[in-house]
Amino acid sequence: MRTREAVLRAAGEAFAQNGFLGTSMSDILQRAGVTKGALYFHFSSKEELAFAVVAAQKAAVTRLAEEEAAKEVPPLQAVVATTTRWARAVQSDPVVRAGVRLVAEQGAYQRPMSRPYGQWEDVLTQLLQRAQDSGQLGEGANPREAAELIVAALTGATIVAQATHGPCDLPQRVEAMWQLLLTGLLPDGHKVFVLPRTLS
Amino acid sequence: MRTREAVLRAAGEAFAQNGFLGTSMSDILQRAGVTKGALYFHFSSKEELAFAVVAAQKAAVTRLAEEEAAKEVPPLQAVVATTTRWARAVQSDPVVRAGVRLVAEQGAYQRPMSRPYGQWEDVLTQLLQRAQDSGQLGEGANPREAAELIVAALTGATIVAQATHGPCDLPQRVEAMWQLLLTGLLPDGHKVFVLPRTLS
Repeated sequence: MRTREAVLRAAGEAFAQNGFLGTSMSDILQRAGVTKGALYFHFSSKEELAFAVVAAQKAAVTRLAEEEAAKEVPPLQAVVATTTRWARAVQSDPVVRAGVRLVAEQGAYQRPMSRPYGQWEDVLTQLLQRAQDSGQLGEGANPREAAELIVAALTGATIVAQATHGPCDLPQRVEAMWQLLLTGLLPDGHKVFVLPRTLS
Repeated sequence: MRTREAVLRAAGEAFAQNGFLGTSMSDILQRAGVTKGALYFHFSSKEELAFAVVAAQKAAVTRLAEEEAAKEVPPLQAVVATTTRWARAVQSDPVVRAGVRLVAEQGAYQRPMSRPYGQWEDVLTQLLQRAQDSGQLGEGANPREAAELIVAALTGATIVAQATHGPCDLPQRVEAMWQLLLTGLLPDGHKVFVLPRTLS
């Protein structure tokens, strides 16, 4: 199990930096410091590794959302907290960072990824639906469309940040995103901004 | 000049579909239907071609923004119209579509792209600054941060749409984005939504 984790992490670092086509199995092997036999025991191809990195990133999203949803805060606050913690994970965790890049590199793979952004969108739609059900979502906002926008904005912010200065300013970008978006999501009169900065 | 255009368009189609590393000069040659000599007369390497595609995409953004700004509509409406027309260009113009993908593929190039998203952000910041100067921007909104969010959301929406169903639903995604964002950008009390659908 430790070998698998070491390989996944090494693959995350390599994919985050050089993308799918710019990474070779021997790059990953070298970074992971494991034997070729050990690597191929866990992953039979570079594509299988890339899909495992994406699966790990999706699992991280689900885990973050579940943790925030369990806190019994208003659902909109759980959405903000989930995305804010995810932005920090993009900075600190190469597997999460690589997941974003690999998902964006559709066309590089032999087999298609199933619903590459679907699970992120589902998780946020559920929370936003709960917000709507409890009257905490503005009339103009649709849970599914809002979730799609949030996922697109997060994906784009990660890619822009990466291309510009590395992922270092992603949390500030996500905070600025919420400053603007919350006004659109909250019901009229609710001008209370839930600033990510104040969340643990 | 017609050869250069044919090569750029063929390169756009290939890069949009397969990315920078997944495209070869011979793919482009085959699509363009020009001789190898003609191609290399205009572009000495695949990287030079990719940078030319990105430059053409940036020029398209500037042209759209200038056209909309010249209409003397409220600046915020010019922002909405520019992004809406750009979303349609992503659908219809492989060079624009490829530009988005190539810019996102930083790390694949020998030399860095200069300010890959900077020009898009500058163009929108200027328009949003004009909106602010004429009292048409809400107090909570900052022109530069709003421009960064819009560029990130557009980039992300393009990548998500491409990975999911191709760019076919991008204009609807951009419209949904504005539904939510405009509430955050407009001053209090301005609940008039400038729907992209109604723009020419």
